[in-house]
Amino acid sequence: MRNGLNMKQLKYAIVGVGGLGGYYGIKLAAAGKDVHFLLNSDYEWVNQNGLRLDSIDGNLHLPTVQSYKQAGEMPACDVIMVCLKTTSNHLLAQILPTLTAKGGSVVLVQNGMGMEESLLETFPDLSLAGALAFICSSKVGPGHILHSDYGKLSLGWKQLPKPGLLEQVCNDLSTAGVSNEVVPDLMAARWRKLVWNIPYNGMSVILRTTTAELMAHDFSRQMLRQLMLEVIHAANACLAAKGSGSSSSESRIDPSFADAMLASTARMKPYAPSMKLDYDHGRPMEIEAIYGNPIRLAQQAGYEMRQVALMENQLRLIQSQYIKS
Amino acid sequence: MRNGLNMKQLKYAIVGVGGLGGYYGIKLAAAGKDVHFLLNSDYEWVNQNGLRLDSIDGNLHLPTVQSYKQAGEMPACDVIMVCLKTTSNHLLAQILPTLTAKGGSVVLVQNGMGMEESLLETFPDLSLAGALAFICSSKVGPGHILHSDYGKLSLGWKQLPKPGLLEQVCNDLSTAGVSNEVVPDLMAARWRKLVWNIPYNGMSVILRTTTAELMAHDFSRQMLRQLMLEVIHAANACLAAKGSGSSSSESRIDPSFADAMLASTARMKPYAPSMKLDYDHGRPMEIEAIYGNPIRLAQQAGYEMRQVALMENQLRLIQSQYIKS
Repeated sequence: MRNGLNMKQLKYAIVGVGGLGGYYGIKLAAAGKDVHFLLNSDYEWVNQNGLRLDSIDGNLHLPTVQSYKQAGEMPACDVIMVCLKTTSNHLLAQILPTLTAKGGSVVLVQNGMGMEESLLETFPDLSLAGALAFICSSKVGPGHILHSDYGKLSLGWKQLPKPGLLEQVCNDLSTAGVSNEVVPDLMAARWRKLVWNIPYNGMSVILRTTTAELMAHDFSRQMLRQLMLEVIHAANACLAAKGSGSSSSESRIDPSFADAMLASTARMKPYAPSMKLDYDHGRPMEIEAIYGNPIRLAQQAGYEMRQVALMENQLRLIQSQYIKS
Repeated sequence: MRNGLNMKQLKYAIVGVGGLGGYYGIKLAAAGKDVHFLLNSDYEWVNQNGLRLDSIDGNLHLPTVQSYKQAGEMPACDVIMVCLKTTSNHLLAQILPTLTAKGGSVVLVQNGMGMEESLLETFPDLSLAGALAFICSSKVGPGHILHSDYGKLSLGWKQLPKPGLLEQVCNDLSTAGVSNEVVPDLMAARWRKLVWNIPYNGMSVILRTTTAELMAHDFSRQMLRQLMLEVIHAANACLAAKGSGSSSSESRIDPSFADAMLASTARMKPYAPSMKLDYDHGRPMEIEAIYGNPIRLAQQAGYEMRQVALMENQLRLIQSQYIKS
């Protein structure tokens, strides 16, 4: 099963064609994979002009793509890659039943924590994987994606795994020139990503700045480090609690991971994290997925993330200043 | 001694004629007390036009005041009220020796913590009291003070008390229509004021807002309350440690004080705290006095104010964006 070369080619549905869905979908389609794009506001434009990717690894233009305006028009797909912002996850209640009626596994390519659990409340029988995108990319125009750094996709099963499927996805990604891996403990991988996302996403919004300025002072690096250590503490409390994953004791995050994150960020180009882009464009921020849910999970495991909770409330107040609920 | 009626009239020096020094100095002078103002940039203007106070308790105009440009020109005073921002305390090394050479006690009318200790390192033999101003007032033009709410001055000895002196000052303040009290434990009073100043001053800057917006949401009130509880914890750790004050066990702050502060702030008019005014005018903020020193003192008493430390570093970054060091 592990060798996908002789297997039936996978059909992909891409739900959410922004910085993530656009990048991975275009790369797969350009490599000859069978990719079907579910579009919303960009549908007419993409139907006329196709999709375009400006990438550090080389530009791609697909003049014609398999595009759809309604989930009901799409064929049965083996892999439904959900690349929406978590703030749009309420749309899935309508979209997913149509797409999964004919089988297929959902791969949730999103940051943060708690989205799989929330999805399984509505769809308890879903074959569900999660994925984390380590990438700097964004949509810069209709059907037009800019990829400026990194790109790796980490995938892991949450429920009802289809044996060999993620490995076949990885083969396809590799063929398409996208670096990838399958992780044994999806929740541990999500926590590790939060060690970066929690300090940098929120602080770039609260302090109206970029990663570079946050890394420019001893005191601000110290602040980031304290936040990282709080996330690592929370992660280890959650991973130690039962039900977190199969290999929780091996998944434990060492505090030295904070220093590794700081060092690798110091080498990055000045960078506005996704939450800063959302803020700059007046879009809702992923506060619940990146802050609220991890805080609640840590609480349930007996650990209070006090600094992270302060940031969450600062972000909620900032969001209330431009989005009236 | 306690009855000041038959005592020699006190001579006052006011150092720093802004929202605080202007208000208390003008009130005392208008009541016929002997008040000497040390001025800097406003000297010429005040010499020509006098001092003006627009106050909710009635407006005052003093066409002529005893004003000085140099500390060396001032007479010997019994009470040297230092009403500078703590960010200008480096000026005291020059000013104070001249003023205290002929005796007299310093009353430090400043927010925050650690200023008395720092002053005593330079002037170990100073007769020193501290005071806390519970007032909404600011300088709105040369020699022109606006007083919009409250006004009470709380005074307490730090070192080498002159018996009866603070009581006589209180008599003078009462005569001038200023509410006042002498507190038995100055450090406890400073901590109690920080329970308000730490959350509201910093958050109004970090979130670019007023007290009213901070009080408008459940989640932001919750955030303020968590910060207040952290300050109360720190205060009690410091007051329990030896050397804090004579009556440290009675000075202990009950956690219910946080709820009382929230309730009284909810009744206030929308208000920009002094740190927000400093930020809005591009002046340095009192980060060290209101955040850095209390954090360090709590640490020495064995308690980490993690949320307050986060705020301190956020403020330092914001200040570095408009003041290059």
